[in-house]
Amino acid sequence: MNTPAPHADFSDASIGTIAVVGLGLLGGSVAKAVRENTGDAGIRVIGCARREETRQNAIENRVVDTVTADPVEAASQADLVLIATPVDRIANYVIEIAKQCPGVLMTDVGSTKFQIVEAVNRVPEAAARFVAAHPIAGSEKTGLDHACGNLFRDKPIVITESGHEAPGAVDIVTQFWESTGGRIVHLSPRRHDDLLAISSHMPHLMSSLVANQLPAEAIPMVGTGWLDTTRIAAGDEGMWTAIVSENREAILDTLEQTAVRLADLIHIVRTGDAPSLTKFLRDAREKRESAPSTQTDV
Amino acid sequence: MNTPAPHADFSDASIGTIAVVGLGLLGGSVAKAVRENTGDAGIRVIGCARREETRQNAIENRVVDTVTADPVEAASQADLVLIATPVDRIANYVIEIAKQCPGVLMTDVGSTKFQIVEAVNRVPEAAARFVAAHPIAGSEKTGLDHACGNLFRDKPIVITESGHEAPGAVDIVTQFWESTGGRIVHLSPRRHDDLLAISSHMPHLMSSLVANQLPAEAIPMVGTGWLDTTRIAAGDEGMWTAIVSENREAILDTLEQTAVRLADLIHIVRTGDAPSLTKFLRDAREKRESAPSTQTDV
Repeated sequence: MNTPAPHADFSDASIGTIAVVGLGLLGGSVAKAVRENTGDAGIRVIGCARREETRQNAIENRVVDTVTADPVEAASQADLVLIATPVDRIANYVIEIAKQCPGVLMTDVGSTKFQIVEAVNRVPEAAARFVAAHPIAGSEKTGLDHACGNLFRDKPIVITESGHEAPGAVDIVTQFWESTGGRIVHLSPRRHDDLLAISSHMPHLMSSLVANQLPAEAIPMVGTGWLDTTRIAAGDEGMWTAIVSENREAILDTLEQTAVRLADLIHIVRTGDAPSLTKFLRDAREKRESAPSTQTDV
Repeated sequence: MNTPAPHADFSDASIGTIAVVGLGLLGGSVAKAVRENTGDAGIRVIGCARREETRQNAIENRVVDTVTADPVEAASQADLVLIATPVDRIANYVIEIAKQCPGVLMTDVGSTKFQIVEAVNRVPEAAARFVAAHPIAGSEKTGLDHACGNLFRDKPIVITESGHEAPGAVDIVTQFWESTGGRIVHLSPRRHDDLLAISSHMPHLMSSLVANQLPAEAIPMVGTGWLDTTRIAAGDEGMWTAIVSENREAILDTLEQTAVRLADLIHIVRTGDAPSLTKFLRDAREKRESAPSTQTDV
């Protein structure tokens, strides 16, 4: 279907080849999931990575069928392009590929959505072919070596429509993401970013805040509580600096609410208000226990 | 060795029978560790629990040799008593048992130490026989059903001497704790509480703070980051209310430092100071990665 189409329509499209731009944990895991789930008769995967070592690794471990260092070259051979780079480069890639490869459909894996969708919306030929997505999977581990074909199994995959997608585009991208094993959730880009600020971005920063306070003397004494609470603080600082920049307003709001609630907690502890402290802890336990049980053992 | 001894000396003592007062996760795990590590020729274990159901469970699952609901009855037959109750009851049990069973040695598992040791120190015949300890093991799971004989394997076990222990007492209790498989660390009660406030008590409260902020709409969308960061928030609120009460001053200090650092972080995010944010995240990653590797997979 990769032919110039000024008024694109993907209603009857099908996906024979995908290009994965960025072969890190998420890009590599999508490539593996696609190859594992569609078997011999399945989708062809073109990998694109800037580093020679990553491209060799992807070929040697059969994560992809072919590799290239050039995103446009990869996209020009594909029906669907997955942009799996850090969030601050996604919109530029989408716009560039839309201009050079006018028939191709695109999606992404970014942890933030509003700024990306807004930037793409300013270029109509890009907006028509881009269906923004965020698979909520991954960990503090990064890189192709940790990629795993069942990373998305039963995980939430948020699709954040812009409203400017060409006919059929959202359906075909949704089907693609369903094929990775995830559960599809639809949210607006703004709502996605507001909720993720609370469920992911602020928790990451608080985890780092807790980790930073440990004195060297206490390092040999940490228990599972500290290790669990600070696990995501081991994440890549460059990737997270970009995420905070892309979702700054929502993260600021959430951090400021956290500061207010921390002040309330300090008051409860200072005054020895045991009933209020017990309620605070009980509410937290109940909230934690309401999380999906299928996810607690990952 | 359980005979009245106004000037106790444990230099030549040995342990044939222990009493475990409180058969929860920690008490049950010590009982299992002792029985598993000493085999047929090993130490006899008397369990003590208030609830009939717990006592039956302990006998049926061969966690202990015999059970009773009366701590003094259990202690009167033992060489060493392990107090494994919530922290706010430990000192009272130690003092009561010291008065009723003057030959017995005692230790505990409390997550706080200063107030307990201080209360026991006010009763010389109790202080001579009590060697305070804190095995840094456990999780958000509670109760005898989760008890496990290798819970303490390679985990830090802090011994906090009061200076009032009878000759030999610290050595024999240290040997006992070593037999559970843990790594012994010696700290003063005050230093223990100050460090634990930073490495355990504050992280627990921050985990609860993060959990409490999640709106219901975001519950189906949480990822491993939120689940890791909030895992300990599922802990028992009564147990943690008691811990906060016992170590209030040190926890207050740490929470106030956390508030100052959170204000700094908010300033960094508000002003878009990417280099400072990257440094904050890098410092946290390096601190997290400096934690003992043997503990990261527990």
